[in-house]
Amino acid sequence: MESELIRYLRRRLPPHPLLKLGPGDDAAVISMAGVAECVLTVDMLMDRVDFRVGEVDPKRIGRKSLAVNLSDLAAMAAEPLAGVVALALPRSGGMDLAVNLYEGLIPLAERYALAVAGGDTNSWDGPLVISITLLGRVGPKGPLLRSGARPGDWILVTGEFGGSILGHHFDFEPRLAEARLLNERYTLHAGIDVSDGLSIDLARLCQESGCGALVRTADMPISEAAGKWAAQVSDGSTPLDHALGDGEDFELILAVPPEEAARILADQPLQTPITHIGECIDEAGLWATDDRLGKIRLAARGYEHELN
Amino acid sequence: MESELIRYLRRRLPPHPLLKLGPGDDAAVISMAGVAECVLTVDMLMDRVDFRVGEVDPKRIGRKSLAVNLSDLAAMAAEPLAGVVALALPRSGGMDLAVNLYEGLIPLAERYALAVAGGDTNSWDGPLVISITLLGRVGPKGPLLRSGARPGDWILVTGEFGGSILGHHFDFEPRLAEARLLNERYTLHAGIDVSDGLSIDLARLCQESGCGALVRTADMPISEAAGKWAAQVSDGSTPLDHALGDGEDFELILAVPPEEAARILADQPLQTPITHIGECIDEAGLWATDDRLGKIRLAARGYEHELN
Repeated sequence: MESELIRYLRRRLPPHPLLKLGPGDDAAVISMAGVAECVLTVDMLMDRVDFRVGEVDPKRIGRKSLAVNLSDLAAMAAEPLAGVVALALPRSGGMDLAVNLYEGLIPLAERYALAVAGGDTNSWDGPLVISITLLGRVGPKGPLLRSGARPGDWILVTGEFGGSILGHHFDFEPRLAEARLLNERYTLHAGIDVSDGLSIDLARLCQESGCGALVRTADMPISEAAGKWAAQVSDGSTPLDHALGDGEDFELILAVPPEEAARILADQPLQTPITHIGECIDEAGLWATDDRLGKIRLAARGYEHELN
Repeated sequence: MESELIRYLRRRLPPHPLLKLGPGDDAAVISMAGVAECVLTVDMLMDRVDFRVGEVDPKRIGRKSLAVNLSDLAAMAAEPLAGVVALALPRSGGMDLAVNLYEGLIPLAERYALAVAGGDTNSWDGPLVISITLLGRVGPKGPLLRSGARPGDWILVTGEFGGSILGHHFDFEPRLAEARLLNERYTLHAGIDVSDGLSIDLARLCQESGCGALVRTADMPISEAAGKWAAQVSDGSTPLDHALGDGEDFELILAVPPEEAARILADQPLQTPITHIGECIDEAGLWATDDRLGKIRLAARGYEHELN
């Protein structure tokens, strides 16, 4: 029952200095002292779309559901404050499932000092749905937006891309610390996290900024998993195709003025490598280039929820 | 497609002074200047649990989904600031459905000056799920909690109860203005909104406050709909039973010190009547009394999501 889950949460959740009132009332109460602007983001994950209940440890599902939301805060160079969790649970085994989802997400919340403030727990005859909403704060430079890229900016990415479905999409670490470090130490023009696919998310950043992008495919950091997945799928797609379109890498794409970008590349201030994969250009759309091909149109590929 | 819905929202949503950045980036940006404490609440509604897609205008579904969340803010005597909407849409007809949901909720958001800040739009093979998260601010007295009731407090309720399923559960007005007026003008000890059932929600308030309640059933404000619904169901339940257990009335239950309560009852400062239905008592649990029965145990009835 819902009240049983609230009792569990009250026992289980660590106290948090920002949380004036946690789960169990009609709303949570959060201290916002010194917060002039906040960011608010929600991501909903569903059984058979984002994971498969029964095929994976529910703790990993819970962790992923929070991690994708934290990745959205990273994309804004924001710091987590508090979050609420809404669940639609299948009737049978729902309580166990709920506890395991929370057991998966609470350690990640603690790691990033996020106050789990409560939520809404429901049961129904449908599959599992998890919707997490996070509240964050931005640093003195304000939020990092998708819309600030300018032609000439270098396109930098963290980490490697492709084949996330082989495990990374559950186990990735949201780039919160990386985004904040880069945003504090350097001048960044725009940023986005790669949830749906490097090419489609880069296209979104460009569209919001009113520019295009030229990607040097030879410089793309392609993960080992992209190669493995290409071999498994075996539909003719190359590891590069997978790196450009698989999605759920949850790495950062950044548009950075050239001198700053050069400084970042020389410094390599993160544990994970930062790679220069191309430039923002005047011409709209996505373009690829390599030593052989010259410049060709690049398809913006990745996961999109189709509505008919 | 999701991007089409974002274009629609950008055209459709009115500008809002608190909204520094609306739909389309990784998160929305909201001004929190002068907000020392905020409240955060989420409610998830599901097809076949909270409404039936295909049997009711989706605009009413959208309106209800926001209204139940606003009712949670009312229960805290909080003022709406901003909200985000997460949708799991059936694949077929999803875009139309999404637009109609928004067309239903946007006028209600405007009425209460709530900034619709964005959301997350998904499609899947499952039924419609709507999860709305609201951010609110509290007045100088702080939030109204469930936990402040004291033995001796009078139990006051707004409006009438029962038979909400005949239409009120879609068309109710969240008691935002009423809660704020009462909280500003009088000393209230505790409050909750009736979502699951008057008796179960009163029991929750009492449990959080460490007291019990004695309800004078003869004084219960029973709606006309409770009578109609009792006649339709015809299972022996009386209109009073329906008033105590139907739920989705979205009225307020308040625990108020006697002298303040008497003042409220004399003033009747709202458009809707305020009724004195009983008192908080030392003894735990819910009790009923009327002229004939003396004091008897009252079942805490209402909707609960059962988790097995």
